[in-house]
Amino acid sequence: MHHLPQGYAYGAAAAGFKKAGRPDLGLIVSRTPAVCAGVFTTNLFQAAPVLACRRSLEASPEVRAVVVNSGQANACTGEQGLEDCETVRNLVGDLAGVPASSVLPASTGVIGPRLRLELWRNALPELGRSLGQAGPEDVARAMMTTDTKPKLASRAVSFPGGEVRLLGMAKGAGMIGPNMATMLAFLVCDARVDAAWWQDLLRVEADRSFNNIIVDGDTSTNDTALALANGASGVEVQTRADREMLAQAVREVLLELSYLLVQDAEGGTKVARIRVSGAANDADAQLVARAVGTSPLVKTALFGQDANWGRVVCAAGRSGATFAPQDLTLHFGEVLVFAQGRPEPGDMDALLKPVMQAPEVPIVISLGQGPGQCEVLASDLTREYVSINADYRS
Amino acid sequence: MHHLPQGYAYGAAAAGFKKAGRPDLGLIVSRTPAVCAGVFTTNLFQAAPVLACRRSLEASPEVRAVVVNSGQANACTGEQGLEDCETVRNLVGDLAGVPASSVLPASTGVIGPRLRLELWRNALPELGRSLGQAGPEDVARAMMTTDTKPKLASRAVSFPGGEVRLLGMAKGAGMIGPNMATMLAFLVCDARVDAAWWQDLLRVEADRSFNNIIVDGDTSTNDTALALANGASGVEVQTRADREMLAQAVREVLLELSYLLVQDAEGGTKVARIRVSGAANDADAQLVARAVGTSPLVKTALFGQDANWGRVVCAAGRSGATFAPQDLTLHFGEVLVFAQGRPEPGDMDALLKPVMQAPEVPIVISLGQGPGQCEVLASDLTREYVSINADYRS
Repeated sequence: MHHLPQGYAYGAAAAGFKKAGRPDLGLIVSRTPAVCAGVFTTNLFQAAPVLACRRSLEASPEVRAVVVNSGQANACTGEQGLEDCETVRNLVGDLAGVPASSVLPASTGVIGPRLRLELWRNALPELGRSLGQAGPEDVARAMMTTDTKPKLASRAVSFPGGEVRLLGMAKGAGMIGPNMATMLAFLVCDARVDAAWWQDLLRVEADRSFNNIIVDGDTSTNDTALALANGASGVEVQTRADREMLAQAVREVLLELSYLLVQDAEGGTKVARIRVSGAANDADAQLVARAVGTSPLVKTALFGQDANWGRVVCAAGRSGATFAPQDLTLHFGEVLVFAQGRPEPGDMDALLKPVMQAPEVPIVISLGQGPGQCEVLASDLTREYVSINADYRS
Repeated sequence: MHHLPQGYAYGAAAAGFKKAGRPDLGLIVSRTPAVCAGVFTTNLFQAAPVLACRRSLEASPEVRAVVVNSGQANACTGEQGLEDCETVRNLVGDLAGVPASSVLPASTGVIGPRLRLELWRNALPELGRSLGQAGPEDVARAMMTTDTKPKLASRAVSFPGGEVRLLGMAKGAGMIGPNMATMLAFLVCDARVDAAWWQDLLRVEADRSFNNIIVDGDTSTNDTALALANGASGVEVQTRADREMLAQAVREVLLELSYLLVQDAEGGTKVARIRVSGAANDADAQLVARAVGTSPLVKTALFGQDANWGRVVCAAGRSGATFAPQDLTLHFGEVLVFAQGRPEPGDMDALLKPVMQAPEVPIVISLGQGPGQCEVLASDLTREYVSINADYRS
């Protein structure tokens, strides 16, 4: 069972954006105004709901509701898309009895088509009836596109003043690259927090988690991570020690969601945990980790459970990071496979067989240059990924 | 029939590096010393034959022979790999009756394993017997890994002093990214040329052709393009006008080979011709073209013949190029699909169906910022690509 933050109600409905009968509309309402932090895609093409969220948070960090739909991205839809977004916020504000300006929208799905507002209107009664009856898992399910399961993670933290709960919901599956939050994620928390600190926290922790996972390296137009804290627990998190405790819980929830996102990548069968250390700096470590995690050749070898370590060395060598080739060492799991510019002796295929067959494959690279490090989680590349994305719209 | 430059002999053999009986060893010998230009991978891990070629060309541009094997890359093999490379050069030099130092080696295949020198030694009699009997197509066939067909292109150019012939052989298929020549390619020409001009020419023309094609974005450890000019035609290409004529022929041959490489990409069914114009500069145009050509989501949509143009816009938006989103226009073929930040009206799926079904799909992007432009050829991403690379070594 998940820890449920106090003071939030959830709703979900099947509006028909996706195939008939599948939930595709989710709503989170906070009983009282919540402080909200947000991080968003860095893509130049920002979907209408992303622009709406950003403008809204710039005006005020106080939020009452988050509404999310799957099946339609409302991206690349121009002024019409922004208008449609405002219509949705008004409809949902009326439904939930909160100001439209305090409703943050998020969408995921096909880029280009206009929102089907008649479906929104028709679905509102169902959404209204479910509000307070549904749970966060229903919202997580309504966000799904090619995800195979809803993704949630939660923590409870005991403070001197009482317990605080934190719950995250996320969707991922494809179009996941490390240049921003790379999916939709909503965190609800019942602590009382300072808005500026909360925003900084989300930015830093999203960088450590959501920005270090790779499915296919594409950064979407709709990436949004929102974190709400409504104070319903009555616990104010203000001292340095308390903040560190809450930060730790946020970090754990985001990392857990990140892992779930990679585990449920489109067509994915493996999680590669790519650890790079010994780089001249963190940026170089990130270049290497991302090159390895994005390489189609590394990813297909993972799928094939093939210990083709040469592809990892090759990807590191073309990453743009600066290092001396003879200083690189590569382990798969605990097994050293490459050092001093040459393969280690031994029957690597036999030694690495159990490593390659495991659901998580640790790829450990040391560059021998300095203190820089980075860890990335990456999925494999499978025939199923191709099938899903060749026929996504049909 | 191809135009055959004078003064070259070709040989090929099945050494057993690949499956038994398939040719995997090729040899080109020039009757007289040829001026040789070379461009090589930018990967930090440079295979032993790449290092040998570079050192050799730094010492002297005069070359007598090129020997190429598939099935083994001799990459990431350390000092042993360099020694094995020297052994091969000596063996081939003896066979062809030329100095070992004038033999340039090239290898392609699995990274890591040591060259199987006993197979080399056993194959030399067959290679010797075929020398002068075989043709360039046999060499092109011996270079193949996952290529489905040998790739050749040729031109003849008439100069006041006589005719010059130019012939290129290339292999590609996978591990093809735009950061260098990205495959093996050998050009033979019977003009007499200045070594420095010839080297500059190859570098410039490789940038325009081999460096603008994308299969999977991986840059290999073994990329090598060599161009030999032996003067056997008796025609010296020296004046500015003559040089421009020969340069044009080189350009055409390299572009033709590039097209063949993308057409025969691993598992490929389509060639996307991605034209970007109106960028602030050429570098920005290249960022956009490469982001689109590398995007797994664009590539799977191409495979699925799905006019999912939103993925192209999305890839442009995350490419790192600077432009105003509302200035981007996108055509598929002649059909305008996106402009002023919103989709064009019309039934795009119906309009684009013939475009998506064609073997070549033109994706035309204008950024409306300045004079920068770039054209990239890219393959699609298919289940077959995954199958090939999941099981490459088995």
